[in-house]
Amino acid sequence: MIFLFTDFGAADLYVGQVKAVLQQHAPKVPVIDLLHDAPPFNVKAGAHLLAALAARLSKDSVTLAVVDPGVGGPREPVAVVADGRWFVGPDNGLVSVTAARAKKCEAFSIGWRPDALSESFHGRDLFAPVAAMLARGDRRTSKLKKAALVVSFGPDDLGEVIYVDHFGNLVTGLRAGKVPRERALVVNGRQIPYARVFSQVPAGEVFWYENSLGLAEIAANGANAAAKLGLRVGQPLTVETSQ
Amino acid sequence: MIFLFTDFGAADLYVGQVKAVLQQHAPKVPVIDLLHDAPPFNVKAGAHLLAALAARLSKDSVTLAVVDPGVGGPREPVAVVADGRWFVGPDNGLVSVTAARAKKCEAFSIGWRPDALSESFHGRDLFAPVAAMLARGDRRTSKLKKAALVVSFGPDDLGEVIYVDHFGNLVTGLRAGKVPRERALVVNGRQIPYARVFSQVPAGEVFWYENSLGLAEIAANGANAAAKLGLRVGQPLTVETSQ
Amino acid sequence: MIFLFTDFGAADLYVGQVKAVLQQHAPKVPVIDLLHDAPPFNVKAGAHLLAALAARLSKDSVTLAVVDPGVGGPREPVAVVADGRWFVGPDNGLVSVTAARAKKCEAFSIGWRPDALSESFHGRDLFAPVAAMLARGDRRTSKLKKAALVVSFGPDDLGEVIYVDHFGNLVTGLRAGKVPRERALVVNGRQIPYARVFSQVPAGEVFWYENSLGLAEIAANGANAAAKLGLRVGQPLTVETSQ
Repeated sequence: MIFLFTDFGAADLYVGQVKAVLQQHAPKVPVIDLLHDAPPFNVKAGAHLLAALAARLSKDSVTLAVVDPGVGGPREPVAVVADGRWFVGPDNGLVSVTAARAKKCEAFSIGWRPDALSESFHGRDLFAPVAAMLARGDRRTSKLKKAALVVSFGPDDLGEVIYVDHFGNLVTGLRAGKVPRERALVVNGRQIPYARVFSQVPAGEVFWYENSLGLAEIAANGANAAAKLGLRVGQPLTVETSQ
Repeated sequence: MIFLFTDFGAADLYVGQVKAVLQQHAPKVPVIDLLHDAPPFNVKAGAHLLAALAARLSKDSVTLAVVDPGVGGPREPVAVVADGRWFVGPDNGLVSVTAARAKKCEAFSIGWRPDALSESFHGRDLFAPVAAMLARGDRRTSKLKKAALVVSFGPDDLGEVIYVDHFGNLVTGLRAGKVPRERALVVNGRQIPYARVFSQVPAGEVFWYENSLGLAEIAANGANAAAKLGLRVGQPLTVETSQ
Repeated sequence: MIFLFTDFGAADLYVGQVKAVLQQHAPKVPVIDLLHDAPPFNVKAGAHLLAALAARLSKDSVTLAVVDPGVGGPREPVAVVADGRWFVGPDNGLVSVTAARAKKCEAFSIGWRPDALSESFHGRDLFAPVAAMLARGDRRTSKLKKAALVVSFGPDDLGEVIYVDHFGNLVTGLRAGKVPRERALVVNGRQIPYARVFSQVPAGEVFWYENSLGLAEIAANGANAAAKLGLRVGQPLTVETSQ
């Protein structure tokens, strides 16, 4: 199975070109769009979102992971196998949180290059063929060589909003299991208390809860929390200190 | 065949997680996205839209139907077979218009529960595995028991805008076959006359017509009717009374 | 393989209905969404975008190409085979740039009609079944007859913005191979110089480059060029004249 995690835009003309290449190189492998609207250019937010999603991906899957503002510049392509799951993308930190949190992880440089490599779309020209090779179980053609990741953000949580969904819910880079339920999240001096589910708070009220990926998420019951609080991806936040 | 009808957002990170579960539980069953931008939280609008789409779904198909603002609360999961088509989702009225209009319909409570059930994403954790079971023809594992729907909106039409498409066309909950062609639709006191096709009215002019789902729809020739009229989902409307 | 190129909207309720028909008529043929947010109603922009994408489509593929503001009016359906690739859609110019640039091209009228043809959704009712027939290798049922295209824009480049992607990059209808690198593009009297890649220009600066489809594209390094320049689809532009 091949998963796609990118900032190419679900409605834009890039994903179809990637899928045409995957279809050509690995016609029998199912392809699933995880997300194509990762925050554009924001590698760190994407890295934390991908790490939260990674635990749910089937073993032996291959994820094409591309948020790549440095495409055409000096950053190298990389393949990582973290707890049995492959990830292919630019070595700019995007897969590094997943890698750093894995129990078992190996990283590889990628020696294979296509005959024609565009300056701006390595997702189509380089990463997609390599993902297809790996999904077919073919490591030799992609010319992998063990190597360390050049850029890594490490395993730690990120005290920032890393994603805003279309309901206006604000996903943070904090794993909810590490935030005591009696503590509020603090954003711009405002305290946001915990609730287990939406229906536990009055309509329109803001709270944080453990979302379905295990991350702390700020939401409002029946309302758009992002609009209500005026927050976006990148907004810093902290956990209330004990008293 | 499995159809997906949700308010999860086509561009958001939820649909891919649902598809990964479907792929795992029913790898050979094709999955088709009908709509992931059903009006958020608006169960009634979704129920009427689904009922209009339902007639076009192939017999023996299974539709995962989830607009579920009460997730995590007391509402129960339900499976319905209406004229040979299965629907799986929350028992909050979403499948009730389809059920009430069917010639033959049975509803079932769902006894199966997953090992891990998130508070906020039953689409992934509960409805997707059950939809996959039913698509594989396996009713036993999902532990269905005949039961009546708890919430039902009944079979009647809805005099409201239930969907606005990206062209700005306003889909109503009125079946066009029940609206005489010589009658106008009345919205905010404004009369909107009938036309058979876009090309029958001058550029920019507003009219209603029978859309490709058999619903009355308000449109403007080569223009955005929603913007022109300042209307949104939920807007009440009536049929002009005879004189 | 069937490709879809439309203005139906990736998030809207039309594409799923088309796919249900394709699944029914050609269940074994993979379907890939190339683009569903072609500029709405803008046949000329779509024609140039499709022509740039066409070169990348696999031989023997069938592309359902529908931007069809005249649906329900007198325009005819057409099938074209251009350099081995099939295209099916309205004869309104949409496939004409692809056809005019092909080394080898034949156009056909389509005699087949469905039992029920809606006034507004020929993509679902007529073009999808015909695309499925052709993808299955069945030309007879679709009743093709050799005929010339009624509407054609010809092979020449288009000095306009034809697409704006979600990063704000402005795709033009100019093939980059025909624009000398030392020439600027001129928009509203402003000169926009060439750069090979994003990282060659300072952050926020506007430039043009050869995009991954071979078209001249206006972008800004790490910023939204469309917002910065206040430009949209349809904006005329020229190549700087030599001095």
